[in-house]
Amino acid sequence: MFDFKSCLNIGKDEYKNMMEPLIIKLGELQRSARAKKIPVLIILEGLDASGKGAVMNELLIALDPRGYKVYSNNKDSEEELLRPFFWKFWKNLPGEGEIAIFDRSWYFSVIKNIKDIDKKEYKRRCKEIMDTEEILQNGKTMIIKFFLFISKDEQKKRFKKLEKNPSTSWRVTKEDWESNKNYDEILEEYRELLKNTQSETDRWNIICSEDIESAKVQIFQNTAEFLEKSINQYEKDSLEMIPLKEKSFSLDSINLMESVNRRDYKKKLRKYKGKLMELEHEIYEKRIPVVLAYEGWDAAGKGGNIKRTVDRLDPRGYDVIPVAAPNDIEKKHHYLWRFWKDFPKGGHITIFDRTWYGRVLVERVEGFCKEKDWHRAYQEINSMESQWVDDGAVILKFWLHISKDEQMRRFREREKISYKSWKITDEDWRNREKWDLYKEAVEDMITMTSTEDVKWHVIPGNSKRYARLKVMEIIIEELEKAVRKK
Amino acid sequence: MFDFKSCLNIGKDEYKNMMEPLIIKLGELQRSARAKKIPVLIILEGLDASGKGAVMNELLIALDPRGYKVYSNNKDSEEELLRPFFWKFWKNLPGEGEIAIFDRSWYFSVIKNIKDIDKKEYKRRCKEIMDTEEILQNGKTMIIKFFLFISKDEQKKRFKKLEKNPSTSWRVTKEDWESNKNYDEILEEYRELLKNTQSETDRWNIICSEDIESAKVQIFQNTAEFLEKSINQYEKDSLEMIPLKEKSFSLDSINLMESVNRRDYKKKLRKYKGKLMELEHEIYEKRIPVVLAYEGWDAAGKGGNIKRTVDRLDPRGYDVIPVAAPNDIEKKHHYLWRFWKDFPKGGHITIFDRTWYGRVLVERVEGFCKEKDWHRAYQEINSMESQWVDDGAVILKFWLHISKDEQMRRFREREKISYKSWKITDEDWRNREKWDLYKEAVEDMITMTSTEDVKWHVIPGNSKRYARLKVMEIIIEELEKAVRKK
Repeated sequence: MFDFKSCLNIGKDEYKNMMEPLIIKLGELQRSARAKKIPVLIILEGLDASGKGAVMNELLIALDPRGYKVYSNNKDSEEELLRPFFWKFWKNLPGEGEIAIFDRSWYFSVIKNIKDIDKKEYKRRCKEIMDTEEILQNGKTMIIKFFLFISKDEQKKRFKKLEKNPSTSWRVTKEDWESNKNYDEILEEYRELLKNTQSETDRWNIICSEDIESAKVQIFQNTAEFLEKSINQYEKDSLEMIPLKEKSFSLDSINLMESVNRRDYKKKLRKYKGKLMELEHEIYEKRIPVVLAYEGWDAAGKGGNIKRTVDRLDPRGYDVIPVAAPNDIEKKHHYLWRFWKDFPKGGHITIFDRTWYGRVLVERVEGFCKEKDWHRAYQEINSMESQWVDDGAVILKFWLHISKDEQMRRFREREKISYKSWKITDEDWRNREKWDLYKEAVEDMITMTSTEDVKWHVIPGNSKRYARLKVMEIIIEELEKAVRKK
Repeated sequence: MFDFKSCLNIGKDEYKNMMEPLIIKLGELQRSARAKKIPVLIILEGLDASGKGAVMNELLIALDPRGYKVYSNNKDSEEELLRPFFWKFWKNLPGEGEIAIFDRSWYFSVIKNIKDIDKKEYKRRCKEIMDTEEILQNGKTMIIKFFLFISKDEQKKRFKKLEKNPSTSWRVTKEDWESNKNYDEILEEYRELLKNTQSETDRWNIICSEDIESAKVQIFQNTAEFLEKSINQYEKDSLEMIPLKEKSFSLDSINLMESVNRRDYKKKLRKYKGKLMELEHEIYEKRIPVVLAYEGWDAAGKGGNIKRTVDRLDPRGYDVIPVAAPNDIEKKHHYLWRFWKDFPKGGHITIFDRTWYGRVLVERVEGFCKEKDWHRAYQEINSMESQWVDDGAVILKFWLHISKDEQMRRFREREKISYKSWKITDEDWRNREKWDLYKEAVEDMITMTSTEDVKWHVIPGNSKRYARLKVMEIIIEELEKAVRKK
């Protein structure tokens, strides 16, 4: 893998002759990729002092700054440490027509903490990495990844040279010398990790940078080739259609007669609100991030339900994110991007009023995405949710269910009461006509995405009071469990 | 100001009777404000335990969550402490049709650190607050500000009550008891601050919340009144036209014959790049934020100039922000919003390739904003820049100047060289036709915004080499000064 016989050495003139046309070509390819709206992710990994910075500066000079962003993933900020592992990467992923250059990435983040994780967690991370890269590639993001290596002696030489120059000596830290001492061990760790994270469609470009000039040329060549191929094949859709599982759930099985009388409701509501207030503090103390995902029929009572749940919470501890059609920034990104972005910090609660399940509900029913896309979405969503859970989050998903008759009753009521009439639109009536298609979609969704990690809670909602108490009971139970466990 | 005789006390029934119609009304007004695309900022300030949280929850329940966001300004994050005082507020300001609720704001941030600042800085902050609120109001953001007060005894009672309940006792901190002990002093500080921060068009709503129910009713009433008035008067433009100063600068005074030979250029370039690399580290050590603002004629060489400047910098220490037409999120905000948002952390460099001066250049010449708007912009920009400088930043502004003939030569050259031809568009030719209008705008800009804090550097650019060295010399000189001073 790290083959020093592959190391080239080119002279200054040869370098100039090779680079000049490559720089022009890269500029052209960037413009074509932008015209085709391709998101491009360039990952630069490598040993310390292997020349990542020099390569990056060279790349930046070749590219039009209107189209790229560089993200340095060397350190974790406070904000990032309170989020799941992949959060800081997701939020910086490129949108359509953009290039993101990651100066180190999830690979370095694994190696950095490799002493603190056991074999099981290591394996999990490798799988998550492969899943994430596949999800992105299937979502039309083009990924090219480079690993730069140098020999132990060369690394030592570079540290020494940096140290000698007073204007760069600060760059060499104790950790750097440490890493030179442990060179063999670290190289072995990378060898293992790189081996575990390539597939036929997702390969590493492993570059010897003993001679930095020839490394630059190679990286430019590989990047140009990769962009060219990406641009030419971009419209081809070679993905397979993933079959659905046979439906194992029917909404008809839900008992919609459940109800609760006013007196009991008031008493319990009061009690639950107090309990939730306590729990908000306890999850804060333990830095547990909590996601409440609300889905349901139009007029099922999501809004009122959320209001009761948060009623006595400290507004500093929670956020309600109403999910409507994506804005133009969101449209340029992967459909999961905006939900990653809004993931709560440890100790905080985010309530999504409609969710990422839009992909397999409205987008499926209205044909906003291809059949292949929503078929694939179930496992993409399962992968995302299990990452969140494995990194310590509580994820609760609710489907608020009402009968078709009850919906009609509520629509009519809304139309009659003047201050509620804005709540009912033509779109609601149009959706209602597609009740059966939505029912099918909901049942598939619950079948496909009720996992061991995160199951669906289907809430009988014909009685709003009953539904409110039920949701609060589930939240209380699950948060208590999570607090006890941690 | 804090008049306890104004304190009302209403019963439970009266509260219900008054609130119900207010809640409905507020919902309606929110929808009208959204339809009219009005950005609304609600500021909630007040003494500890004065009931801000309760008021906020009540407001949130009345509003449609699709339209508001709550921002808590009680603590400063790491990111925020490394930015100018107003940064964290600007980035959360509401866009068109949105409501932002600030749980505490710039007022609390002043009071919080009042022991650490001298009279001069205090006065400066008061002025900055008034400037900022005026800039926002003139930019069509509607601001309503509330201050909630209670008596010393009532505060004590509330702390005790919170302490007694095991699920809320954690909320009462040592600082809270401290603030009760120093009640009189703190009230006096607020009295002074509130007095210093109101004007005829920007008044405080000072609310007694001894009885929290009647405080809620008052706040709802005031908010409803305020929204109603805002909606009705929104289209009226009662702002005055601010006259321009007589021009004191002409581009014709610039000597465009300056040049430098190739050998000297290479030698100096090398030296300057090394120097900049050192300085990048020194400003990092001292946590100085640096903004380099590039403006200039089309084809003046901004891109190439920036590339040389950053050539040997560590990419982790700087960002290049190319400024094009605003995207749809930016369009919904104040024209200065996106530049605040991208302001560098202390120790970092942000290079803007075109800037906030677009307001008085392209927007003026193309008529994208009203004459009144760009007339007013000069002092808005001066206010922003002097805030940045006073909070410790280095701001350098460059106008790259070339002659009209030189521009023609470069346009022609770009058209001829295939890999440069994408750089020249119809728009460039159209802009060229408006050369005289732009010249006028540039001269006004330099006249109006060369301040004591931040002056303009007009760079003769017919010789690209000369311009590159000149810019680097200025950056080096100014950064050295800043490093020495700190």
